[in-house]
This record gives sequence, C-alpha cells and structure tokens, in this order.
Amino acid sequence: MKKTLALILAITTASVIAQPASDSAMIRSIYDHALTRSKCYENLEYLSNTIGPRLSGSAQAERAVIYSKKLMEEYGFDRVFLQEVMVPHWVRGAKEEAYFISANKKETVQICALGGSVATPAKGIKAPVIEVKSQEELEKLGKEAVAGKIVFFNRPMDPRFIETFNAYSGAVDQRSRGAIWAAKMGAVGVIVRSMSLKIHRAPHTGAMRYEDGVTKIPAAAISTYDADLLSAQLKKRTVTEFWFKQSCQTLPDVLSYNVIGEIKGSEFPDEIIVVGGHLDSWDLGTGAHDDGAGCVQSVEVLRTFKELGIKPRHTLRAVLFMNEENGLKGGLKYAELAKENGEKHLAAIETDAGGFSPRGFGIEAEQRIVSKIQGWRSLLEPYGLNDIRAGWSGADIGPLKPQGPALIGFMPDSQRYFDVHHAATDTFDAINKRELELGAASMAALVYLIDTYGL
Amino acid sequence: MKKTLALILAITTASVIAQPASDSAMIRSIYDHALTRSKCYENLEYLSNTIGPRLSGSAQAERAVIYSKKLMEEYGFDRVFLQEVMVPHWVRGAKEEAYFISANKKETVQICALGGSVATPAKGIKAPVIEVKSQEELEKLGKEAVAGKIVFFNRPMDPRFIETFNAYSGAVDQRSRGAIWAAKMGAVGVIVRSMSLKIHRAPHTGAMRYEDGVTKIPAAAISTYDADLLSAQLKKRTVTEFWFKQSCQTLPDVLSYNVIGEIKGSEFPDEIIVVGGHLDSWDLGTGAHDDGAGCVQSVEVLRTFKELGIKPRHTLRAVLFMNEENGLKGGLKYAELAKENGEKHLAAIETDAGGFSPRGFGIEAEQRIVSKIQGWRSLLEPYGLNDIRAGWSGADIGPLKPQGPALIGFMPDSQRYFDVHHAATDTFDAINKRELELGAASMAALVYLIDTYGL
Repeated sequence: MKKTLALILAITTASVIAQPASDSAMIRSIYDHALTRSKCYENLEYLSNTIGPRLSGSAQAERAVIYSKKLMEEYGFDRVFLQEVMVPHWVRGAKEEAYFISANKKETVQICALGGSVATPAKGIKAPVIEVKSQEELEKLGKEAVAGKIVFFNRPMDPRFIETFNAYSGAVDQRSRGAIWAAKMGAVGVIVRSMSLKIHRAPHTGAMRYEDGVTKIPAAAISTYDADLLSAQLKKRTVTEFWFKQSCQTLPDVLSYNVIGEIKGSEFPDEIIVVGGHLDSWDLGTGAHDDGAGCVQSVEVLRTFKELGIKPRHTLRAVLFMNEENGLKGGLKYAELAKENGEKHLAAIETDAGGFSPRGFGIEAEQRIVSKIQGWRSLLEPYGLNDIRAGWSGADIGPLKPQGPALIGFMPDSQRYFDVHHAATDTFDAINKRELELGAASMAALVYLIDTYGL
Repeated sequence: MKKTLALILAITTASVIAQPASDSAMIRSIYDHALTRSKCYENLEYLSNTIGPRLSGSAQAERAVIYSKKLMEEYGFDRVFLQEVMVPHWVRGAKEEAYFISANKKETVQICALGGSVATPAKGIKAPVIEVKSQEELEKLGKEAVAGKIVFFNRPMDPRFIETFNAYSGAVDQRSRGAIWAAKMGAVGVIVRSMSLKIHRAPHTGAMRYEDGVTKIPAAAISTYDADLLSAQLKKRTVTEFWFKQSCQTLPDVLSYNVIGEIKGSEFPDEIIVVGGHLDSWDLGTGAHDDGAGCVQSVEVLRTFKELGIKPRHTLRAVLFMNEENGLKGGLKYAELAKENGEKHLAAIETDAGGFSPRGFGIEAEQRIVSKIQGWRSLLEPYGLNDIRAGWSGADIGPLKPQGPALIGFMPDSQRYFDVHHAATDTFDAINKRELELGAASMAALVYLIDTYGL
C-alpha cells in the first residue's frame, strides 16, 4: 500500500516536472500577450517610418543602434550592451537612370545599382546589350560576342517552387556573381533581372561581388516588368543600345554595432539561447520586413518573458546583428566574440524571412535535436506551426555553427516575401500587425520549450 | 505457387489502381499549372476592377453573371448554364454621415449602413448614445434608460483567437441582431463596432436582420478607429449627442442567377463534385477577396482539368452562387433544384475565406470521410495543406447538407481577412497572385483525389 502510494506520488511528481498541462497554458499566455499587449508593431513603425532605411554605415543605422539599445534598457532587461564591429559603407548616390533604344525609340526602364557595385562614368555607359539566362549560356557565346557589351542576365525565379526561398536560391547567382562572369568575357556592364516573383516596376537591389584580378564593372538590377519589356524587344531584334548611369561608391569602413539585450538564466546563466534578426537593411524601402520585423520580434521575445514573469533557466539574448545585407560582419563578430569569451550557446533562432504568418521552424542540428523539437508539435500546431523540420536557419547565426548550438530559422509564410525583398515596396504598410505578433509569439513559445526542457 | 502469384498480381494491381506515385506527379502538375499558366489572377482583376462591386440586384452583379458565363463557355466546359433565383435588392444610397458632440465639439466619424437597414429620416437621427458590449448588458440597463437613445454596440472581436473567424463568430451577433435587441428596448438607432481586428477608419458593412413585430430602426457600422474614439469620450462623460444619416432602402426583389459550369464525368456522370464561391459582394470595396477570389478559383479548378487533359470520373461543377451576402438565395435555390432534379452530390467544396495562402480544409461529414481525406495528407502537405480537420465548410453549400454530400471548406490563412472583409479595403490590390493561384491548385488537388478515390 505504501509502495503503491509512493509510486503514485512519484508519477504525480514526474508529471508536475514534465508539466504538459502547464506548458500548454504557458504557451497560450505567450500568445495572449502577443495578441493583446505586444509592442512589436509600434516599435516596427518607429524603426521603419521614423528612423527609415538602415544601410550599414548610414546615419539611420547608427540611429537604429541607439534606439534599440535604449528600448531594451527601458524594458528592464538585465543587461544591454553593444558589440563593436567595422562594417562596409556603400552609398547609392543619385537615383539611377536607364533606357534602351529599340527601333529608334527610347524606352526608359527602372533600375537600381546592386549593393557593392562601382559607379558608371558620369555620362553613363552606352553599349549593345545581350540577354543570357546563365553563366553557361554566357560563356558559350564566346569572348568576341560579349566584349564591349552590357550583359543582361534574365533567368526568372522559378514560380513553381511552393517556397519562394527555393526560387530565390535558384536565381540569385546571377545577381551575386554575374558581374564577375561578364567581366571575364570583356563585358562593360551588367543588368540583372530583379529577384522577385512579382511582375512590377520596382527594382530589387541586393549584394553583388567582385573577384580579385577581374575588372570591376557596374552592375544594376532591372525591374521584372522592364526585364520582360527589354527581353521582348530583344527577341524582335530591334534593340540597338542600352544606357545606364549610377553614381554609387564604397567609402571607408565605419564603426558600427551589434545590439544585445539579455535576461540572465536562473539555473544555467552560462548557457545562452539567442533569438535575433538584423538591424541593417537595404536603402530603397524602409526595411520593414527585411529585417525590422525580426528585430522587433526578437526584442519582444525577451519582453514577453519579463511581462509574464517567466524566469528563464538559461540566459536569453536578443541579438540585433549589424550588416547582414552586405558583409555579415555583425554575425561574424558575434561568433568570434562568443568563442573568445568562452560562451556556450545552447540554441540560436533567427527571424529573417519577413513578418508574415507563422508556418514553422527549420532546424540545423543533429537528428536527435530535430526529433526533440518535433516532439513539441502538439503544443505548437494549435498556433499554425505545422512545419518543423531539418532545414535552413539564418545567415547571422551561421558563423556560430562550429561552436555547436542548435541553429533554428523561424519560417513564416513565404508567398509575399519577394514582392518586397530589397525593394522600395518593403515598407511598414506591407506589415500585418497580427502576423508580426504571431511571429514573436512563435519564437517565444519555442524559446520557452527549449529553456524548460533543454536540447 | 499459382495462388502466390495470383496474390502478388492482386497486390500489384491494387497498387496500380492506388497509383501513389502518379498521384503525387499529377498533383505536382496541377500546382505547376496554377503557378505558371493560371488565369485566375487576370480574371479576378477583371471582376474586381472592370466590373466592380456586385451587390445582389445591382447592374454589376448582372454584368458578373454575363461575364462569368461567357468565360466558362470560352474555356470549353461541357455545359454552362444559369439557375434563376430571385434576390433581395438593397441599395445604400448617398454616402452616410455621422458625428457626435463631445464637450461642445463636433467629431465626425466614419460609418456605413448595415445591409438590409432602413434609412434614417432625411435630416438624420440625433439622440443621446449609450455604449454596451452585449445583449445582456443592454437588457440590464432597462427600457427607461434605453428608450429614445442610440445604442452603440462596442464589443471588439477577441484578438486572442488564432483563427480570426472564431473572433468574428464571437462578435457578429451585435451586427446581425443588435437592431432587434435595441428596438425592443425602445432605442431609435443602432451603431455597431465594425467586425474587424484592425484599428482603421474603414467601416465594415454586413447583413443585419429585423424581426416581425419589432420596430425597424436604422443600423450602421462605425469604423474600429472611431468606435475607440467614441468609447473613450463616453468614458469621460462628455458626449451629449450622436447624429447619423443614411438613405439606404430595400427595393423589390430582382431576378438573378447562379452561374454553373460543368465537365461531365466519364464513369459516374450522375455523381457531382461541386467547387464554388459566391459571385455577389458587398458594395464598399470591389469584392476581391470576398468572394471574387473564390469565383475565379472555382472556375480555374475546372479549367485546370481541361488544360491538363484530366478526364474526371465524376461530373465536376464550378458553381458561382448569387446572394450569399444578404439572403443566401442562390445557395438555397441550388440545393432546392438539386433535390428536385434528383441529383446526387458526392462532395461540395466552398472557397469563401479570401484568396490567401492555403492552410487546409474543414470538413463537415461523417468521421469515416474526414479520416479518408486526412489519409491524403502526405500528398497535400508539401503544398502547405497541413490542417485537415472536421470543421466549417461554407454558407452556400450548407443547404445541400440534407442531401448527404461531404461539405468541405477551403481554409486559407485567416490573419488578414478581417482587414478587408465587407469594407472599402477589399480591392484587387489586396490580392497576392501566388496566394490566389495556390488556393485554386489546393482545391483542384483535392477534387482530383476525391474524383480518383471517391469518398
């Protein structure tokens, strides 16, 4: 009888420790908080509309550092600090101009310089234009056909992918490496179809690279609408010339900062769970989805713990990385300092796929950890987090990989992301308040589970 | 040995019939079609921007009937026909006006008449206003407190629901029955907080009812922004009067139509699978999400079968119901005629939750059928259809229920729906092309599976 009672007590105690009912109640309260008392929408409005675009090295990026540090201090996090990091300082200059001549008619088109590109001469570059879909197709043309021309890379993102990030991955080599390929063949400039599935007139910028020993030629993105227009005219063989002008330049590196807020862990203060996004953005829109959303959501995760009085066992950090877009210097610096300081990271969650309706998480970790997180499915599915799988995490947390934490990427619905990504359309009015809030709650719920059960 | 061989053959044959590999290939081709060659986006642009809002009985509703019949004829469906149905003809009249007086200051607010409401007198109604959250709270006030006043129903949709339709269900009684409750207490008018989770200045209309023997008092929706403003002023006890004016009226019923396109079944021509939405809309926006999206998606489902050369075993019908918004006359007529004609419906799928990113299906049917559809999960999950469950289907197909078909509701992501629902914000620019196309493909895939395996 006593033994049975002891057994019953043991079972009861075990279930108290495992607390499945209280987990679901706690997650419910995290979502209630997000949907009724979250500050992330108003914080994103400030970041997007009052501060504006936050290209690395810009005055607005600097303001965003000061603002987000102050914000986390006001929220009473245990520790708020900056990490110094030198970042590239590329500036766009005057608005770019472009046209082509077809059947003696001038067609103005919408372009923007790619991030990192050199300028054209002040009078622009005028040259015949040839369209290709890939590096291979370009090289087959031979140097003689390409020399002295502008190369127009026009392989669209493949709309058949259900997840638009896969379509992006399949096309972005043209943007990142097109100028290298073309310069090696003697081209004088590069025009790349914008990385977007939407046919519209907004060009989408993004990082491009040069290669040592290869001539640096100017590179620009053309809007999808204008790419289709140019391509149709090229098929008619009526296009004689393409002209474009841009005055971008790379200035000396600038001192900037990662901004970090922390709540100390009660049991394992030396084991860190990171949730982060990147504070820098491109300059055409106001970086609302990419990645203002991720920044305010990350801050909100820690604020949620404070507001609900949840004392985490591990140390929680919101990390707002600087310079994801054109250098990744903040992510690299964060990992470098973590190693230098002997920090142990249990997990790092990145939110850099837009402030859209939550779908799930991608996990870069050993299968045991993927399975463990999938084991929490019944707690997460009521909130639309149906898709938990091994997969991509995020660029900023990538450099932490050798140090062994589970790397996790928050996955919102991807359908609308490339309508706004790196373009003038990435503004606060493209944000839905509830979708943004649900994203913050999704990460807070996952952080809560990782903190409670470890990995 | 012979027996074993026979068994092996039987298993092989069974697996050929079940065709799991070809199912996944067929579904893949349905999605490829949707994302590369679908017409639903351009059709919706026409329906929304060229035809415009399609309130039952209006000239635009009539144009939409003609247009969609012609469209399905052009697509070469086996049979395209109309079903006559008499529908209510309510008209809004001049734009409504409203203000309240607080501390001797006039505050203009945004309102719109609720569908079916009577007009105010030409000079409007001016009266003291009292705020309540529910019928119960109103009745507790007592007739003396309510008589001669305008009742302001201001219970917000509860933002804590993850699915916004649940928040809608929990608040919409104020809109549909508020005028009855208030009139019974002697009120002279009703102002209802708009059914929206977004705080903005666009009022959201929708159907309201009167009750025989109860005075018909004018009823309007006030924007959520203005509802909060009025409520705050009422708390300060500075509001002296509310005035509003509307000139809506109900004209005699009008002859209108359900529009139906059909592909005849090769094996079971007398067993019908319906996919449908409603062609009518409210008049403030252009009915893009509600429910132009559902109409063009339903047509696209049949067009997909035609384009891919899939010959359905059962008869497929795209049904564009008339008058879902303020009468359900089309849905009722469809079921009535189905019964009269001895038609057998295997399944009916409704799409009336907006053209957003697909999430799954709700199923109103016996558990055996729910389980059977859930058994197709592995074929549907790669396309984001993770949520397949017993649940709500749709209003238009509801009247078919006694005839026994499985009733299924397509469920897209619900976060943005009540930003646009019944408001001036429900326009074509709120549509994302890919989300719309994925919805059409989701239903085509489900129709394909039901047609292949029965229910």
